[in-house]
Amino acid sequence: MTITDRPVDNGVDVGALLAARDALSASPDAAAFTWRASCTWQRGTHSHATVSGFAGLGTEHLHRTTYDFDLDHPECFASADLGATPVEYVLVGLVGCLAAGVASVAQHRGIQLRTVTASISGDMNVLGILGADADVRNGFDSILVRFAIDADASREELEALVAQSQKRSAVFDVVTNPTRVVVELD
Amino acid sequence: MTITDRPVDNGVDVGALLAARDALSASPDAAAFTWRASCTWQRGTHSHATVSGFAGLGTEHLHRTTYDFDLDHPECFASADLGATPVEYVLVGLVGCLAAGVASVAQHRGIQLRTVTASISGDMNVLGILGADADVRNGFDSILVRFAIDADASREELEALVAQSQKRSAVFDVVTNPTRVVVELD
Repeated sequence: MTITDRPVDNGVDVGALLAARDALSASPDAAAFTWRASCTWQRGTHSHATVSGFAGLGTEHLHRTTYDFDLDHPECFASADLGATPVEYVLVGLVGCLAAGVASVAQHRGIQLRTVTASISGDMNVLGILGADADVRNGFDSILVRFAIDADASREELEALVAQSQKRSAVFDVVTNPTRVVVELD
Repeated sequence: MTITDRPVDNGVDVGALLAARDALSASPDAAAFTWRASCTWQRGTHSHATVSGFAGLGTEHLHRTTYDFDLDHPECFASADLGATPVEYVLVGLVGCLAAGVASVAQHRGIQLRTVTASISGDMNVLGILGADADVRNGFDSILVRFAIDADASREELEALVAQSQKRSAVFDVVTNPTRVVVELD
């Protein structure tokens, strides 16, 4: 690591996160969060979704603004391609979660980041979702994430950074471990 | 189901999907798809992601346009809230995938949809991601999806519709079953 007079600043307030950890450990009810989205079907495989609020710290929160998303299937599936596909949303969430983790852990470890880019790819045999082969799963066979990081740190430190980001990533856990999902009709 | 003179039209080309199923069953190499996203860290927990192309049917495809996404953490985690959180992206992907499935299965079964809306919520104890309690997972404890469907169908038919959508959903599989994820440093 290069020693400079400038303090490390990746834009992550680690002090606030550590304070939150202490405060929530002392009052675990406040640590119960509920994240939400709403979805309205448009036509065909096109849906529109919004994310506006969530619950946590014992109260309701509104995002700074409502986030809007269009989801669709691509033209090669005879759809209109009016948005990214649902599985691409999962890849976006996973890579964004790992990138936020890299920044947070780097701040905590005193590593100044210059640039962080990542590519993510997920292999899928679509005979599963098409119902053509019962032995083929619907989801990804496997996912590969590749980070390129320019930072004041050794390769060993950067590898440890990426490993710690995985260890604390919510979406990495969601994708690599099973989660109970209940789907109901109103 | 109400019998009318108008053919059912949910905007899904079921004929094309069934033809694709037959064609891909006959040449399974073409059924190998790779979905992708790219991500560039901005500052703090804020990243920008793009989705532009994918591979499948033995060739490369470009989406109609590049889809752009901002991901961030909310202000109550001392972040700038410049985008939905990564876990909210997963919820958006899951609910959008199920909605597309409802429309596709309804078309296949001759059920005319009028409106389909859904809410999704995921409970999460943030003591996991904060590293405060090793017994708490990072991801969701559980996810609840609730559909409201107005359609020319009985409640039993609608329940079967939602059940079949789950059965063929890529993202439902990703969330409810483990997937291998490899994270590498370039």
